[in-house]
Amino acid sequence: MKHLPVIATLAFALPAAAQEAREPVTPASVVASASADEWVTISPEDILVMELAPDARGNERTVVIQLMSPPFSQPWVDNVRALAEAHWWDGTSVYRVQDNYVAQWGDETEERALPEGVVSPSTSFALSIAAVADFDANLEAMVSPVISNPSPSAYASEELFVRGWPLALGDMTAWPIHCYGYIGVARDYAPDTGTGAELYTIIGQPQRHMDRNLAVVGRVIEGMEHLSSLPRGTGEVGFYTQDEADLRTPIISVRLASELPEPPAYEYLASDSESFARYVEVRANRDDAFYTVPAGGVDVCSVQVPVRRVSE
Amino acid sequence: MKHLPVIATLAFALPAAAQEAREPVTPASVVASASADEWVTISPEDILVMELAPDARGNERTVVIQLMSPPFSQPWVDNVRALAEAHWWDGTSVYRVQDNYVAQWGDETEERALPEGVVSPSTSFALSIAAVADFDANLEAMVSPVISNPSPSAYASEELFVRGWPLALGDMTAWPIHCYGYIGVARDYAPDTGTGAELYTIIGQPQRHMDRNLAVVGRVIEGMEHLSSLPRGTGEVGFYTQDEADLRTPIISVRLASELPEPPAYEYLASDSESFARYVEVRANRDDAFYTVPAGGVDVCSVQVPVRRVSE
Repeated sequence: MKHLPVIATLAFALPAAAQEAREPVTPASVVASASADEWVTISPEDILVMELAPDARGNERTVVIQLMSPPFSQPWVDNVRALAEAHWWDGTSVYRVQDNYVAQWGDETEERALPEGVVSPSTSFALSIAAVADFDANLEAMVSPVISNPSPSAYASEELFVRGWPLALGDMTAWPIHCYGYIGVARDYAPDTGTGAELYTIIGQPQRHMDRNLAVVGRVIEGMEHLSSLPRGTGEVGFYTQDEADLRTPIISVRLASELPEPPAYEYLASDSESFARYVEVRANRDDAFYTVPAGGVDVCSVQVPVRRVSE
Repeated sequence: MKHLPVIATLAFALPAAAQEAREPVTPASVVASASADEWVTISPEDILVMELAPDARGNERTVVIQLMSPPFSQPWVDNVRALAEAHWWDGTSVYRVQDNYVAQWGDETEERALPEGVVSPSTSFALSIAAVADFDANLEAMVSPVISNPSPSAYASEELFVRGWPLALGDMTAWPIHCYGYIGVARDYAPDTGTGAELYTIIGQPQRHMDRNLAVVGRVIEGMEHLSSLPRGTGEVGFYTQDEADLRTPIISVRLASELPEPPAYEYLASDSESFARYVEVRANRDDAFYTVPAGGVDVCSVQVPVRRVSE
């Protein structure tokens, strides 16, 4: 906590035998030693690159988003792709930042015309287990077995990872989860489900009461700090007031990576891999130079799926 | 999510009968209707007022902290009071901000001499149930019965609220929890437990793996956004680098409220009150104009204990 950088120094100071005995196994060390075939490429069609205006020091602010994998939330994800292809977000802004809740962006005026076909889908935020199984007969094989039972939750009968995404199960349905950095679709009252033009990301504790009430369409995989550190709005529920109009963060552009001349490339650690299982276990039972009392469990949102940038 | 401010308008637009039928019961409405005798005064001896340097717009930044109640973490809490009385933090800074983790403050150089008697306590971060019961024979009566069983957790056999603080139980011990806005004592490797001179607060998801490994000494009850929105450090684990020295946030002063000429006054909603039980229930089962699928449970860290400022 205080002196993590000291770990390296300590290692040098110890005799070789003691060094080996104390070799700290941490979530990071498990991820670092995962084999190449345990990493899965994220398709450029599933990556959005959002350029915010530079910060006060003139530094670029790029936020990279991974879109939700099928079969979940796909009508909204299709809308998000259509909006990106239409360059619809260019010139909009992050206009609401509520502490320990959300940063929200899009067209605050709601006057900008949407691309043809981008409408609020008439469907549910959860899927039946049957529909999920229909989509992928191999579902069971892809489920990470580790997280489910040792870590009970207030929010679902079971929680697990499929294709690198945390999911909850209950009442014969499955649904995606609102963890830190996860992105959902703002909406008006039901039956409106939102189009995907106005998006929010969770900037504090998980907001699991939103699960099944709003569509989760993705997560931030790089540059999250550019959203989480924005000044909070003092208007109701974090909207910037008239006096704070200059606090809105302009969005220069949002593009699908597949549209960029030099798209950034990313991989995630397969959630059905041995290293992922080990990673969950070590997160639940820290026992290294710094942590001496293992928690004995881990919340699904505290198992952040490892994602890494790779050079082309 | 999108149009919460519209609730008021809607209420006006509906005929009276429909209005009553739809009267939204929300966590906020439960808290607003709690009776005066369900609120408990926080002693000025348990409140710290931290003045950060004004922000870029010249706005004051005051962070108000409530210190942990007995019998938990008291050796560190005593140190924190002694440090505040010595005005020890005046002229120090917030020198580390790691995204989705902590903001940490104190004397980055670790060269400032500590007041006499402020040393790293030799004790455990958890207490035996017997010690807790010894401290307060009425413990059982003060426990909020609602949160325990309906909301299982990965981190403890039971979680509950005592005297307005979330606690975890297991292995015949009880310990305080690292939720959003909660403050702990930075330390070096064991057996060091930290003095309380270097403190951190959780600025993202709960960090429950820190429970029982570091001392929880309080929580932010006002002005949390002044810590959570600080720029993240790009150095290792969020320390500001040499090039980012100007990003450190100067601390003008930290005072016990009891030392201030006009101390701010606060109350918390008693966790053994009927309104608190109802508040937890509504948080677990949102069913209002916006949320239509109740979660059916709630994580202990998502039950933020209501605290309000009162005029003297």
